[in-house]
Amino acid sequence: MNGTEWPGGANCAASFTFDVDGEAAALAADPRTARSLSVMTHQAYGPQVGVRRLLRILERARIRSTFFIPGFTADLHPTTVRDIAAAGHEIAHHGYHHVKPTGLSLAEQAEQLDRGTDALERLTGQRPVGYRAPMWDLSWEMPGLLAERGFHYDSSLMDDDAPYLLSPGPEADETPIVEIPIQWALDDWEQYCYLPDVTELGPIQTPQHAIELWRAELEGMRRFGGCWVLTNHPFLSGRPGRAAALEALISEVSAMPDIWIASLNEIAEHTKLGGTTPRQIMPLNHHLK
Amino acid sequence: MNGTEWPGGANCAASFTFDVDGEAAALAADPRTARSLSVMTHQAYGPQVGVRRLLRILERARIRSTFFIPGFTADLHPTTVRDIAAAGHEIAHHGYHHVKPTGLSLAEQAEQLDRGTDALERLTGQRPVGYRAPMWDLSWEMPGLLAERGFHYDSSLMDDDAPYLLSPGPEADETPIVEIPIQWALDDWEQYCYLPDVTELGPIQTPQHAIELWRAELEGMRRFGGCWVLTNHPFLSGRPGRAAALEALISEVSAMPDIWIASLNEIAEHTKLGGTTPRQIMPLNHHLK
Amino acid sequence: MNGTEWPGGANCAASFTFDVDGEAAALAADPRTARSLSVMTHQAYGPQVGVRRLLRILERARIRSTFFIPGFTADLHPTTVRDIAAAGHEIAHHGYHHVKPTGLSLAEQAEQLDRGTDALERLTGQRPVGYRAPMWDLSWEMPGLLAERGFHYDSSLMDDDAPYLLSPGPEADETPIVEIPIQWALDDWEQYCYLPDVTELGPIQTPQHAIELWRAELEGMRRFGGCWVLTNHPFLSGRPGRAAALEALISEVSAMPDIWIASLNEIAEHTKLGGTTPRQIMPLNHHLK
Amino acid sequence: MNGTEWPGGANCAASFTFDVDGEAAALAADPRTARSLSVMTHQAYGPQVGVRRLLRILERARIRSTFFIPGFTADLHPTTVRDIAAAGHEIAHHGYHHVKPTGLSLAEQAEQLDRGTDALERLTGQRPVGYRAPMWDLSWEMPGLLAERGFHYDSSLMDDDAPYLLSPGPEADETPIVEIPIQWALDDWEQYCYLPDVTELGPIQTPQHAIELWRAELEGMRRFGGCWVLTNHPFLSGRPGRAAALEALISEVSAMPDIWIASLNEIAEHTKLGGTTPRQIMPLNHHLK
Repeated sequence: MNGTEWPGGANCAASFTFDVDGEAAALAADPRTARSLSVMTHQAYGPQVGVRRLLRILERARIRSTFFIPGFTADLHPTTVRDIAAAGHEIAHHGYHHVKPTGLSLAEQAEQLDRGTDALERLTGQRPVGYRAPMWDLSWEMPGLLAERGFHYDSSLMDDDAPYLLSPGPEADETPIVEIPIQWALDDWEQYCYLPDVTELGPIQTPQHAIELWRAELEGMRRFGGCWVLTNHPFLSGRPGRAAALEALISEVSAMPDIWIASLNEIAEHTKLGGTTPRQIMPLNHHLK
Repeated sequence: MNGTEWPGGANCAASFTFDVDGEAAALAADPRTARSLSVMTHQAYGPQVGVRRLLRILERARIRSTFFIPGFTADLHPTTVRDIAAAGHEIAHHGYHHVKPTGLSLAEQAEQLDRGTDALERLTGQRPVGYRAPMWDLSWEMPGLLAERGFHYDSSLMDDDAPYLLSPGPEADETPIVEIPIQWALDDWEQYCYLPDVTELGPIQTPQHAIELWRAELEGMRRFGGCWVLTNHPFLSGRPGRAAALEALISEVSAMPDIWIASLNEIAEHTKLGGTTPRQIMPLNHHLK
Repeated sequence: MNGTEWPGGANCAASFTFDVDGEAAALAADPRTARSLSVMTHQAYGPQVGVRRLLRILERARIRSTFFIPGFTADLHPTTVRDIAAAGHEIAHHGYHHVKPTGLSLAEQAEQLDRGTDALERLTGQRPVGYRAPMWDLSWEMPGLLAERGFHYDSSLMDDDAPYLLSPGPEADETPIVEIPIQWALDDWEQYCYLPDVTELGPIQTPQHAIELWRAELEGMRRFGGCWVLTNHPFLSGRPGRAAALEALISEVSAMPDIWIASLNEIAEHTKLGGTTPRQIMPLNHHLK
Repeated sequence: MNGTEWPGGANCAASFTFDVDGEAAALAADPRTARSLSVMTHQAYGPQVGVRRLLRILERARIRSTFFIPGFTADLHPTTVRDIAAAGHEIAHHGYHHVKPTGLSLAEQAEQLDRGTDALERLTGQRPVGYRAPMWDLSWEMPGLLAERGFHYDSSLMDDDAPYLLSPGPEADETPIVEIPIQWALDDWEQYCYLPDVTELGPIQTPQHAIELWRAELEGMRRFGGCWVLTNHPFLSGRPGRAAALEALISEVSAMPDIWIASLNEIAEHTKLGGTTPRQIMPLNHHLK
């Protein structure tokens, strides 16, 4: 996509977002990981250590960012959530138990959504306006659930380079939500995560490799236009060497005059102002044979 | 292979081909992906966004190319197919549902073939003359089916560096088809694709890594001779950073005086003129024990 | 974590540790590997060849280190264990059969622990004071078992950058143990190990890649503070090219004036002196739904 | 290992060996691959195209090498075997159907061995003297079977850096065989092979990466001593870009004055002259619990 007009005439927007999965991600992938203190601490590193380091980095760079937090993680680590909010960042919704919406019934999806909202609101006093599906696996029904509840945006789809308005369905009379697309190449999970019996990814890449990958996409978007949404997980990118590399990248991007750095709710607000025609979700009714 | 004489005395031929898999590839790998809006949009990025960017790149480079499109994808994204054809590129056959021929009966293979041909012909007014098997998994029976239907070439086999004539079988009285071989190292899928529960590849490589891999093989073919057939998927290589890297590679190859850049149907026509003796397909009747 | 004060005012501590898995690791992963002389010799390379080369490297660098050895491996390769001890290094506990504690009952965990201690004590005359869980998969019960038996430290958890005191539980009246955290990015297994049907990791990375990864984390810890605990497996990093690269890294780290290089028992002793409040282990009683 | 004395006072020996797996490797991994013309041609590339290119490279470098060929592949591609032999290289045994010995009974192992020997002898007029286990998975019984049949050496084990004499067992009165160890890091399979449903390795590495890996180990062996045995598969490293990179490496190694380049039977002969005490194979009778 190009043609999107960004504030200040920027060529593209950029957002440094964080998915604070914590223990929930491992437990949802395999409940037996509850038996493993090693796995639980691997995940706890994020909310306990990584987030604090990343908050200081964002503070030094004077960047406002968006943190997606599962309700379960918020309940386990309330101080972490309050610290993020106190630093002025956006707290957004990432499910309750970090389970994929696509594996749930409509009622279960609604229950995960409401339970997650309650957990975040209890801690911050504010209802989240943004949502990202656990495992980046959004269902066809979720946009409707989000619109009904007054969410402003989702950030889980992959079919464009820039945000757009999304209408939950032909019969919906809800306000459309904004979709802010993501992509697997702008995720630290793929580059850094190794956890036997949970994810079989690997070998673990160097911070240099991850940065090179993310910078290549940013350079492409500076040329072609788009909205570069990077996702880091504090249990991964909060580690010293990766955090240092991320801080260097943030400095580099901050110095680019043609980039608008913003949190996702700011990008969503800007997109709504653009006033384009909403796209309709059209469930795929074709069959394989 | 060497000994092939290319137009203008080139050392090797080169073709930049595209497999426009779209949603079909994920649905064929696992029908449950239909539940996931994230996965469907990940795939839709190709026909909706990637193809348009790649078409502009090919136009700037003044290169004619070949796009393999499953019939199902063509039916879902008719405008994309018409745009590709209107830009002067070859539209070729890539199955209907993007299912592997090797898992189908002979009748099912024929049905997929005819249904795919109909879909493409309906949109472009022309019957495709080239075929590439979904998942690059050609069956022993398919060359015969292709020859009976008047296809000029297939591009799914891996046993040579340059095209050759292929006769479907000893009892066949059909005209031989041309085989234009491919190889896994000249595919962006292997370098860029990550899609949980669909393909477990990863970590995602940088565009620099992919280009280095593809250039190494091109340099080898400039020395030893051959036909360098690169395959990119618009849902992967249509992304800004990768598209920019691919455009740089195309410029580089275009400036090489000893390379003949062509679409696959042009390469097939040239191969037929060469008039070498067709090879016979000989099904492997040996048993393991 | 920062705030830890290291001897000599160092910014961070560093320890070069070794897990001498040997045949036990393959047999525990899949008992059928006992049928394969190739797999058994792949593992035996560590205690038979790799350890000797690594001991000479440590001697040249004048570094004291920690070797974690499963009791089964010690019983199979007694001379290797005696050579390590004779060179002045710490011999630490790595289970008996290299089975994950998380898959065992409490009684089985205790049995593995005691059997491993006996094997090491028989060979060295000393009871080990340090423990690392096989497959880095510590159970919730193990810290209590370790404290009861007088172990000084564990090195299997992942929730901090620096050591801390760990209390096995609210009702425990045992002395807390020290936890010296590890992380997957500081492990040669992930970078170098490929063994069909045992681990499907790969492709095997170059020594340059592994060193770059480990150095990036060390540089991060020099900046942010922490305790850099590298783990090498002699069956992997004892190979000539990798051992040469490790020796170069050891030289490089030894020349850094702000790093305190020590064995893990020395780090544990230093941590105890720090006198911080022990953290309590709190088993995760939350349920997924 | 060091202490081995090589001809001409070389620091280490080097051998460029080839496993000409062909179709047999895919069929043994999964018999259903017989349905796939794409997979069969992927494998046939080795004996049909790759071997010829590699033979010319070896000829230009004036190097004698060793080719391990399954009997099934020899029967399918007799001309290829005769060409290799005619070029003066050693033809060695690689099983008949490329099935792992560790999955077979003693009688089945003997049958595979004899059938493979017959196939090679029929084509070359000579019985092979060297053996390498398919999938590098040697059984405990195979050394005895090899010794009984007068084989001079095996090259499938991984517990040393240099060759040694191996005695098949305490009760054996056979002449010991020579073992010439290999290792996974000196194999192009790990770096280059990707074949869906057969091997899930990947992403495919660049020739530069593979060469860097292999060179690192050679440099280590130049320093510490050893016998560098590289294995390439013609269906992988016979491809133009990889063959060019391999030829450059061969030139580089040929110019090193401290390396003795030889075929494996030459290395085996040299090892026998050394007259060291044979090691005894001692099956692992320990149990896991």
